[in-house]
Amino acid sequence: MIAMIKSLQVRGAPMIGLAAVMVLAHLAQQPSTTEAVFREAALKLRQSRPTAVNLMNNIDRILSFEPGKMNPDWILNQAILIFREDQELCQQIADHGADLFIADILNERDDNDLRPLSILTHCNTGGLATAGVGTAIGIIRELHQRTSHVHVYVDETRPLLQGGRLTAWEMGELKIPHTLLCDNMAALLMRDKKVDAVVVGCDRIARNGDFANKVGTYGLAVLARHHSVPFYVAGPYTTVDLKCASAAEIPIEERAATEVRGASGSFGKVQWAPSESPVYNPSFDVTPADLVTGWILDSGVFKTPEDMVKVLGQNV
Amino acid sequence: MIAMIKSLQVRGAPMIGLAAVMVLAHLAQQPSTTEAVFREAALKLRQSRPTAVNLMNNIDRILSFEPGKMNPDWILNQAILIFREDQELCQQIADHGADLFIADILNERDDNDLRPLSILTHCNTGGLATAGVGTAIGIIRELHQRTSHVHVYVDETRPLLQGGRLTAWEMGELKIPHTLLCDNMAALLMRDKKVDAVVVGCDRIARNGDFANKVGTYGLAVLARHHSVPFYVAGPYTTVDLKCASAAEIPIEERAATEVRGASGSFGKVQWAPSESPVYNPSFDVTPADLVTGWILDSGVFKTPEDMVKVLGQNV
Repeated sequence: MIAMIKSLQVRGAPMIGLAAVMVLAHLAQQPSTTEAVFREAALKLRQSRPTAVNLMNNIDRILSFEPGKMNPDWILNQAILIFREDQELCQQIADHGADLFIADILNERDDNDLRPLSILTHCNTGGLATAGVGTAIGIIRELHQRTSHVHVYVDETRPLLQGGRLTAWEMGELKIPHTLLCDNMAALLMRDKKVDAVVVGCDRIARNGDFANKVGTYGLAVLARHHSVPFYVAGPYTTVDLKCASAAEIPIEERAATEVRGASGSFGKVQWAPSESPVYNPSFDVTPADLVTGWILDSGVFKTPEDMVKVLGQNV
Repeated sequence: MIAMIKSLQVRGAPMIGLAAVMVLAHLAQQPSTTEAVFREAALKLRQSRPTAVNLMNNIDRILSFEPGKMNPDWILNQAILIFREDQELCQQIADHGADLFIADILNERDDNDLRPLSILTHCNTGGLATAGVGTAIGIIRELHQRTSHVHVYVDETRPLLQGGRLTAWEMGELKIPHTLLCDNMAALLMRDKKVDAVVVGCDRIARNGDFANKVGTYGLAVLARHHSVPFYVAGPYTTVDLKCASAAEIPIEERAATEVRGASGSFGKVQWAPSESPVYNPSFDVTPADLVTGWILDSGVFKTPEDMVKVLGQNV
């Protein structure tokens, strides 16, 4: 599982956290698993993806039993609860996001403006990344069901092509009208006023509202600001890390150079750049709170990080 | 040749213009070529790439003989003159650009600031795109020769990967220190203050300073402005179209969806997106003059479009 998380075969912050607890629940069920082995495996898994706070939160919950009192059935039950909770959280995020876009964008338009609600998204945040309908894609899916009047612009999301491979496929399966584009084409779309809003998922949200997400997100936020396009981030409360004061504390992984020198996956493997070319390959980037129009969480839409912390602080 | 230009096997605005006149010079040398055939072939070639003004200017020059007085040797001579002129123009651009970056960036630094001069570029604008040292890459090459203290960030330039395939290779051949990145990582580099300047080539510059270039250029210009990074465009006077008032008059080609659904070239061919996914694939975008710090031409560096037009207007 650690290898699968590192290679991004299991990906998406919620799904990583879910896969980890499922694997641990299974490990705990094996008669040969001692508590020491279990705790060691859990701590190793906890470190496999430094950006994803869900992983850490979920594993801390699974490890929250008293030392010497490991109960495999209690662990399995926690894992199932975490899984069901993720499904519910996704639907709540989808509902709040759909309410927001209908109220703030569709209902604000002239009656004779019949263009679809046009949303640009990055990476993959749907049923392939969560136990439920997803975060940003969950919102898009809910909007499509309620209005049948949505168009999604899908960033391909180099280097691992989660948009081109996964989101484009998922939009096709859900029969949601969509258009795939290379990451460097989003600016032109915005300039041509073809994007009503940008919505992305996240790997971790800091207390001040800064958040980490797939590389390319920060650039999109800057472009959205320049073109006065609203920019939203969506995620469950489990991605908010109240202990993390700001983006400066979020570590950014650098990944293998081979990812940027070519492309590989179930579709095949090609390399176009010279093998000796040095490469920059940060996996994530951080978007400062001042570029965010709103934070769409399961508990509601927050227009300031202070409002978000006020509500989340009570629930913790 | 038309097929090669359309498929981008021959690419780069100057190289397209050069290849076209060489082919026409060869055609004129064939005893069977009548003037009518020659003029028809020239006009077809003239339309093969609507963005590139060099192509149109060069062909107009080759066709500027009096009707009924086609002279194959005069045509060949014009083609050779155009070729030599491109080499000279490249070196003049390189010299002006190098002077500029040394004066405005390197000489403005603290004496104990030993970081290399860090330049980000997009697409490919070097010896593979011109008859000479190139435009943006020519400047980088000249700076490397003069200072040995340059570092180039190379945007991969999806979908056709001119940066990943060609510029990365060219930097390796020239032994210029460089780092390859995906297009969506440039914002993070700028935020981390790792880019001293952006320099790109261009397909056409309008009278008001707006210019067309490979898609992704406009987004870089917006990001550079947000991060207070100087943004320069480089090209020979032949890419300036004084008859074109502004970007609104520059046509933007849309290219085949297959380019975005995967990647193909001499390195192989893969497809990762569903065959039925609709695609947005503009080949170029337009950067408005107000995002440009300066225009680096063979005749000098211009800080305003008015200065550029004043000098170029005299030469026309």
